[in-house]
Amino acid sequence: MGRAVDINCDLGESFGAYTIGDDSAMMPVITSANIACGFHGGDPLVMERTVRLAREHGVEIGAHPGFPDLWGFGRREMRLSADELRAVLTYQIGALWAFARAQGTRLQHVKPHGALYNMAANDAGWSRVIAGAIASIDSGLILVALHGSVMERSGRDAGLRVGREAFGDRAYNANGTLVPRARPDALITEPAAVARRVVEMVTEGTVETVDGGEIRLAPDTLCFHGDTPGAPRLAHAARDALVRVGVEIAPMGRWLS
Amino acid sequence: MGRAVDINCDLGESFGAYTIGDDSAMMPVITSANIACGFHGGDPLVMERTVRLAREHGVEIGAHPGFPDLWGFGRREMRLSADELRAVLTYQIGALWAFARAQGTRLQHVKPHGALYNMAANDAGWSRVIAGAIASIDSGLILVALHGSVMERSGRDAGLRVGREAFGDRAYNANGTLVPRARPDALITEPAAVARRVVEMVTEGTVETVDGGEIRLAPDTLCFHGDTPGAPRLAHAARDALVRVGVEIAPMGRWLS
Amino acid sequence: MGRAVDINCDLGESFGAYTIGDDSAMMPVITSANIACGFHGGDPLVMERTVRLAREHGVEIGAHPGFPDLWGFGRREMRLSADELRAVLTYQIGALWAFARAQGTRLQHVKPHGALYNMAANDAGWSRVIAGAIASIDSGLILVALHGSVMERSGRDAGLRVGREAFGDRAYNANGTLVPRARPDALITEPAAVARRVVEMVTEGTVETVDGGEIRLAPDTLCFHGDTPGAPRLAHAARDALVRVGVEIAPMGRWLS
Amino acid sequence: MGRAVDINCDLGESFGAYTIGDDSAMMPVITSANIACGFHGGDPLVMERTVRLAREHGVEIGAHPGFPDLWGFGRREMRLSADELRAVLTYQIGALWAFARAQGTRLQHVKPHGALYNMAANDAGWSRVIAGAIASIDSGLILVALHGSVMERSGRDAGLRVGREAFGDRAYNANGTLVPRARPDALITEPAAVARRVVEMVTEGTVETVDGGEIRLAPDTLCFHGDTPGAPRLAHAARDALVRVGVEIAPMGRWLS
Repeated sequence: MGRAVDINCDLGESFGAYTIGDDSAMMPVITSANIACGFHGGDPLVMERTVRLAREHGVEIGAHPGFPDLWGFGRREMRLSADELRAVLTYQIGALWAFARAQGTRLQHVKPHGALYNMAANDAGWSRVIAGAIASIDSGLILVALHGSVMERSGRDAGLRVGREAFGDRAYNANGTLVPRARPDALITEPAAVARRVVEMVTEGTVETVDGGEIRLAPDTLCFHGDTPGAPRLAHAARDALVRVGVEIAPMGRWLS
Repeated sequence: MGRAVDINCDLGESFGAYTIGDDSAMMPVITSANIACGFHGGDPLVMERTVRLAREHGVEIGAHPGFPDLWGFGRREMRLSADELRAVLTYQIGALWAFARAQGTRLQHVKPHGALYNMAANDAGWSRVIAGAIASIDSGLILVALHGSVMERSGRDAGLRVGREAFGDRAYNANGTLVPRARPDALITEPAAVARRVVEMVTEGTVETVDGGEIRLAPDTLCFHGDTPGAPRLAHAARDALVRVGVEIAPMGRWLS
Repeated sequence: MGRAVDINCDLGESFGAYTIGDDSAMMPVITSANIACGFHGGDPLVMERTVRLAREHGVEIGAHPGFPDLWGFGRREMRLSADELRAVLTYQIGALWAFARAQGTRLQHVKPHGALYNMAANDAGWSRVIAGAIASIDSGLILVALHGSVMERSGRDAGLRVGREAFGDRAYNANGTLVPRARPDALITEPAAVARRVVEMVTEGTVETVDGGEIRLAPDTLCFHGDTPGAPRLAHAARDALVRVGVEIAPMGRWLS
Repeated sequence: MGRAVDINCDLGESFGAYTIGDDSAMMPVITSANIACGFHGGDPLVMERTVRLAREHGVEIGAHPGFPDLWGFGRREMRLSADELRAVLTYQIGALWAFARAQGTRLQHVKPHGALYNMAANDAGWSRVIAGAIASIDSGLILVALHGSVMERSGRDAGLRVGREAFGDRAYNANGTLVPRARPDALITEPAAVARRVVEMVTEGTVETVDGGEIRLAPDTLCFHGDTPGAPRLAHAARDALVRVGVEIAPMGRWLS
C-alpha cells in the first residue's frame, strides 16, 4: 500500500442554545472526528447528534476530552492532580463511548483538547497519566498526539498506537513547535500553500519552517479547526492535493500500525 | 433455589470537598451499589473510588443517573425533552461504564435518581425513554424500578430485566405508593419493625399498609438510603432477619430472570 | 408630555467562547437592555462588556435573571422552592449591580428570563416572590412584566413601578396571551406589519388578535429578541414608525410612574 | 484606645445538599465572616442564610470570592486573564452585596479564597487587579490580605484599608510565609499554644518561627478555619486569652485605619 493519511477535526463543541463551528461543512472532508465530551464544550444531545452525523459521513469517532471549564472552553490551564486527571479522562471517554455504542459503532481514538493537549505535549507525568487512562479503558484506542511530543512517546510506552498529528494551516518553528497564534505569521491562510505543505509532509516527511529551514514531520493525521473561517476550503484544498499525488485519505484506525 | 433478594443503596454522592453519606459503612451490608454519575452528585474521582470500594466488598455496580442539577441534588423536577432525557442517561451510564471497565468489571444495573426516578415511576413516556436508553447501550443491564410502577412495565417492554424495588424503612399507602416524607408516619425507624416488614415482603409477597390493610409487594431488591442516620443499623437488621428465615442475600444480576 | 414608550432587548447572553445574538446591532435602536446574569446565559466578562456597550449607547441597564440552567438556556421549567427562587434572583441582580456600579451607573429594571418569566406570568406565588426579592434590594427598580399578567399585579402590590411589556413581532390570542411559537402564525415577520401594530398599541392602546378581533394592550415597553434573524430591522421599523407619529422613544425609568 | 483585633472565619461554604464546616459554632467567637459567593462553594440560599446568621450574632460580613471551580473548592490554580479575574471578583462581590442589602446591612470587607488568595499574595499583577476590582465597587471595603504580602501593598496602593491577616494555628517560616500543610509541624493544635501565640502577635507584634527565631507580625485580623476539627475550641482559647490581656475583640471595620 502507498502512503495514507487521516484528516481530523474537533467537532461537537456546541452547547445547548450555543452553536460553534460548522460541523456539517467539515464532515465531508475529514476521516476522523474528535467529539467534545461535555466538559470544555459539547452537551449530551450534541454528542449524540455528532456521533450520528459522523456515522452518516463514514467518519470515524474519537473522544475529545478537555478540562472541566466550559466558561474557558478548556483553554485555561488547570492544575489537576494526577488522580483527578485520570478520572476526568475516563469519565469523558466513557460518556462518548455510550453514544457510539447506542448507535452501533465504537471509538477509534482519543485526542485531548486545548490546554490539556498543550500541557500533556510537554509534560511526561501528565502524558503518562493520559495514556494510561486510555489504555485501561481500551488498549485498541489510538492516542492522537502532537508529532514529536512527549505525549507521542508516552502513548507508545503505554502500548497504544499513536496518531502523530500535524497542522496544515500552522507555521512551525525550527524546533518542531508551532508558531504561537499571537504572531502574525502563525497561520497559513492560502489554500494553495496549505495544500503544498501537507503534500510535502505526507510524501516527503518534511515541512518548511517559519525561518526558511526544513524539519522532519511525517504526520499520520492532519488537523483542521472547524471554528476558523475558511476551514472547510483549506481542508478540501489539502485533501484534493493529497489525492492528486496518490495519497490515500482514510481513517487512521484502518491502516495505522 | 429458595427465595433470594438483593439489597441496594445509593452511593458515591460526595462531590469534591463535600462528603455525603457513609459509603464505607453501607458496603458490607449491601449487594448492589447505585453509583452517582456526576450530574446530581458524585464527581469523576468519587466515581472511580466508589467503584473500587464496591469491588473490594464484592458489591455489584450500577449507574445512578440524575438530572443535571448539582445544586438541587437531582431532587427538583426539570422538564427535559425526550431527546435530552435519553442523552442525559446515555452520557451518565457511559461515564460510569468506563470506570468499571478500567477496573476490570462491568455494570449490573441502572437506577434513576431522585426526581427522575419519581417522574418516571408515573409517566409512561419518560419511563419508555429511560428503558430505551438503557437497552440501546446494553440489553443485559437490569433496570431498577419502583415495584408496581409504570417504569417497571416500560422496562419489561424494552426487553430488560427489571429489579422491582421496595423500601424497608418507608410506609406504604393502600394503593402501593409511598407515604410522603412530610408525614410523621412516613418512616419506619425501629430496626425490629423494618426487619419484620422486609421478611414479610420477601417471604409472603405482602406488606402492611399505613392504614392497617395489606398489599401485594414482592421486591427483588430492597433499598436503604445511606444518608439517613441509622441506615447501616436498619440495613443490618433487615439482612440478618432475612438470612435467619433462609432468604439468600445476593446481587440480583446472579438470579434475576 | 405626549405618549412615550421604551424599547427593550435581551442582551449579553453570550458565554465564554460562545456567541449568541448581535448585541452591537440592537443597541442603537433600544432604550433598555436586559442583561443576562450568568445563570441561563452570560458570564462575568460578558456582563462587564455589555454594561459598557449599553453605556456607550446611552441605553439603560436591567438585570435579566434566569434559572440556573445554562444547558437549557433557562427555557426549561425548574421547580425551585420559594426560598430558592428569591435567593436566585437576589444573587443575579446583585452580580449585575456590581458591574453597573464599577462603571458609575445603576440598574433601571429587572426582567425575568425564559421559563422563569413564563411561570411567573401566571403564578401569583412565584410572581410575589420575584417582586418581593426585587423590592427588598431596591424599591426604585422597575419590574418588567407581561402586560396584563399576574406578575404585573404582584409588582404593583410590592410597591414597584411596573413596565408592562408587549411584543411587536408576536401574534396575540383573544385572551391577551401570546400565540405559541410552534404555530405558523405566531410570528409577525413583515417590518411594515410590526410597525403598524406597535403604533396601534402605543397610540390607541389596542392590538388586533390572531382571530381578527381586538384587545386592549397599552405597553410601556416593547420587546425585540436579538437572536431572531432580522430583529434589528424589525426594531428599527417599529421605532421609526413610532417616531413619525410623535411617540417619544425613551428609557422607561425617565417617565414611568 | 488600646490594641484591638478582629477574628475572621471562612463560612457559608455549604452547597445544596452538601454541608461543610460548622458555621453556627464559629459565629459566637468571631467578629468578621468571610462568606463564600457561589463559585468555589456556597449557593444563593446558603449565602442568604449565612448573612442572616452573621447578623444575628453581630458579626460583620465580607465577600469570600474564589475561582469558578466548585469541584476543586477553589483550591486549584486557574490561569484566568486579568479581565476574567476582575470580572469574577466583581460578580461575586455584587452577588453577596445584594443579600446584605436585602437584609438591611452592608459588606465590611473582601477576602479572596484558596488558590486565588495564594496566587495574589505573591503576584503583583493579580493583586493589583483584585484591589482595583474591589475599589471600583466600593472604596470603603477592607481588603483582607496575608500580612506582609504583595497583596497588602496592592490594597494600600489602590486606596483601600487593608486588614493584615495572620493565623494563630499555623507555624511560620523565618521569611514570614506559612509552613506548608504537608509538613507535620505546620499546624498548632494545642489551644494553649495558639492562645500564647496570638497574644504575642497582637501585644508584641512578633511571633516565634518554626526554627526558633522571631519575626515581626502585627495582624489586624486572626483567621480560624471552621472546617478543621476543634476550630471553635482553638478560636475560643485565642479569644479568651486576648481578652484577659486587655485586647479588644471587635470587627476591623470599626477601628481599622
